[in-house]
Amino acid sequence: MQLDPNEQSVREIYAWMVRLITPRPIAWVSTLSDDGVANLAPFSFFNGVGANPPTLLFCPANRRDGTPKDTLVNIQRTGQFVVNIVTDPDAEAMNTTSGEWDPSEDEFEIADLDKADSLCVKPPRVAVCKAAMECTLLEAIQLGTGPGGANVVIGRIVQIHVSDEMIGEDGQLDAQRMATIGRMGDADYVRTGDRFSMPRPRRSK
Amino acid sequence: MQLDPNEQSVREIYAWMVRLITPRPIAWVSTLSDDGVANLAPFSFFNGVGANPPTLLFCPANRRDGTPKDTLVNIQRTGQFVVNIVTDPDAEAMNTTSGEWDPSEDEFEIADLDKADSLCVKPPRVAVCKAAMECTLLEAIQLGTGPGGANVVIGRIVQIHVSDEMIGEDGQLDAQRMATIGRMGDADYVRTGDRFSMPRPRRSK
Repeated sequence: MQLDPNEQSVREIYAWMVRLITPRPIAWVSTLSDDGVANLAPFSFFNGVGANPPTLLFCPANRRDGTPKDTLVNIQRTGQFVVNIVTDPDAEAMNTTSGEWDPSEDEFEIADLDKADSLCVKPPRVAVCKAAMECTLLEAIQLGTGPGGANVVIGRIVQIHVSDEMIGEDGQLDAQRMATIGRMGDADYVRTGDRFSMPRPRRSK
Repeated sequence: MQLDPNEQSVREIYAWMVRLITPRPIAWVSTLSDDGVANLAPFSFFNGVGANPPTLLFCPANRRDGTPKDTLVNIQRTGQFVVNIVTDPDAEAMNTTSGEWDPSEDEFEIADLDKADSLCVKPPRVAVCKAAMECTLLEAIQLGTGPGGANVVIGRIVQIHVSDEMIGEDGQLDAQRMATIGRMGDADYVRTGDRFSMPRPRRSK
């Protein structure tokens, strides 16, 4: 079957995108408002950009009423955010923070999550998370307006935190211990236990 | 443990990023050179951007010698590309195309893959893929230069192809039949069979 995006509603095209682009990593983004109220929300249009400079990005869509989400507003005002990494034990708390809460409400409190100080930025980390990346805003690009309007937030990674227990005997991050979860379509998530390896081919024939 | 990215080499920081940001979806990107030579290569710094307008992005890093990859060169010259979706049966062929082949070589032929015509753009699709998104270039952003230098390619989705057999009885994409695979750190991949659901919370307290 073929689908012409111009003939689909924003809602329909979004549903196709989140079912086709899988599995997606989850950025659990913490920010602070001008007034110092903490905000915490998950985003699965998220990924690394590159290592030189160390950069990542995520894409907070506008709300259904066309206004930007609190996370984007906070980052544009303060220039700082933290990407907390979501693992299996934190799934339920993460999901709680995906609700549309009032800007005056602190999602850490709503989801009963402790805060941990960051080193280089003001927004707190989620204390229970196994890893987090502190970021400063490099660029925020507005690609669309109105409901579902697309935005791209590019951040420079200025500090990385990894829980010591997640490091294997080889000194590297152990994927089995980390047990990150990813996002699929609709209300579906995926665990990362069923892994396999494929070494890269020779560089040329 | 804490890591200051400024104290890490580009290679080390890249290794941390690909282990921390998981699972990542895979864009198997087909393009055409000026001369009409087809190129096909996988990228896992890839995701949707938003549905309004329908947009996605991927981030081709510069090669170790600091030059841009053929995929980026082709897109900048032609303004077109196709994102083919990678599923379990196509894993090995996808991996073959991740080698650094000469621009004069057609990775479809190297990996013994048939081409299928696209509807709105000139680069061919991977015939065997269960789904593909035809895209036109919206913006290519250069964030870094030299080895591992970061680039962001944002495309507008102009056509979507989905194999009829991947559609369930509800008329929607069936994740179990699709069996997409994702990227983990190092040479590791992940299957998407171990899924669970969490309905979104009420919109406010």
